[in-house]
Amino acid sequence: MLLCDIGNTTYNFLEINSNNSLDFNYKKSVNTFSPTDIKQKVYYICVNEKVKNRLENLDNWIDLSLKINIDNYYDTMGIDRIMACEAVKNGVIVDAGSAITVDVVRDGVFSGGFIYPGVSAMNNTYKNISPALSYEFNYSLNLDIIPKNSKDAISYGYLKLLYNEVSSYAMDIILTGGDADRFLKIFPHARVEKELIFNGMKKIIKKADIC
Amino acid sequence: MLLCDIGNTTYNFLEINSNNSLDFNYKKSVNTFSPTDIKQKVYYICVNEKVKNRLENLDNWIDLSLKINIDNYYDTMGIDRIMACEAVKNGVIVDAGSAITVDVVRDGVFSGGFIYPGVSAMNNTYKNISPALSYEFNYSLNLDIIPKNSKDAISYGYLKLLYNEVSSYAMDIILTGGDADRFLKIFPHARVEKELIFNGMKKIIKKADIC
Repeated sequence: MLLCDIGNTTYNFLEINSNNSLDFNYKKSVNTFSPTDIKQKVYYICVNEKVKNRLENLDNWIDLSLKINIDNYYDTMGIDRIMACEAVKNGVIVDAGSAITVDVVRDGVFSGGFIYPGVSAMNNTYKNISPALSYEFNYSLNLDIIPKNSKDAISYGYLKLLYNEVSSYAMDIILTGGDADRFLKIFPHARVEKELIFNGMKKIIKKADIC
Repeated sequence: MLLCDIGNTTYNFLEINSNNSLDFNYKKSVNTFSPTDIKQKVYYICVNEKVKNRLENLDNWIDLSLKINIDNYYDTMGIDRIMACEAVKNGVIVDAGSAITVDVVRDGVFSGGFIYPGVSAMNNTYKNISPALSYEFNYSLNLDIIPKNSKDAISYGYLKLLYNEVSSYAMDIILTGGDADRFLKIFPHARVEKELIFNGMKKIIKKADIC
């Protein structure tokens, strides 16, 4: 079975081997990859409008967003966030990519979420405000001490404020997305689930009984 | 007496009338204003390196940063933040400009601070991550409810996270800077002190007995 999570820049594939050997994960660039090259069935989600339009005309590309009960979420919520929520019964999901989306799921029901800038975006933000704020974030920062130097002052502004809010839910923290490992330093009790979105997709495929 | 707080884009003047009539506040652009046009004594602080170099050679421009005991602060801390701290005995200062600096002062001693992006910078950050996140922030947001729509999801990410941290100090909150009034909606119990930096400058002038 082939799954695909399509973002703004990449197709992220997961090839699941039916004989239970290791799954195979690979990426293709949105700019160079042609979806018509794949002839087998692909179960996908897509946040990229341009790609979405291309895929609608391909019979072997199955849009899993159509299998979701959107009433449980909201209209403009990214399908990647929804799939991550579908994979979780209780917990707060921190998906650290170009944006950091934080979503709370209680007893399998989405209770709300918020959006915070990703590492690279926030780094650029500080740099653009002033060259004097052009530092890499310090993930080893002691979050209990209000800083007295510039590098820690921006790191605290970015990381401690996220930490406060995420910790305030007093729930299991699930880290996913490209920067999940970095944020494990800030949330040492979190668990990293790199394939959270794919797990949600598998669950939906099973629930909708379409495979 | 003439005071001047020089930022990256403007000279902010405060003309204090000795006969106790109203003070007079005005701005000049860094690009067009020539400091040699002023012949009277000007007590100034300056975060703009280019302007700083020009002013060093002008005898009537008195640099107040030289009157500060830097041991109470840290080397790369902006002189505007330091002056705001000098004006406060106990409280957390939220200076909402191109960056938002948050500084804690206890019994007249600076205990640390952090730096967060200003409104315009953060708006651009979200917009640059995705056009789908290009919203104005909602300052009337209910901070007790995790959002279920995109506009509130970014507003919460920006505003609630700042609110949590600033409130956690359980101290008086003093708002200053160009966006102080906007943030009064988020911190309704704060007091706005638009001339906080000038107040710090006046205090230093008095303490150093140079006027």
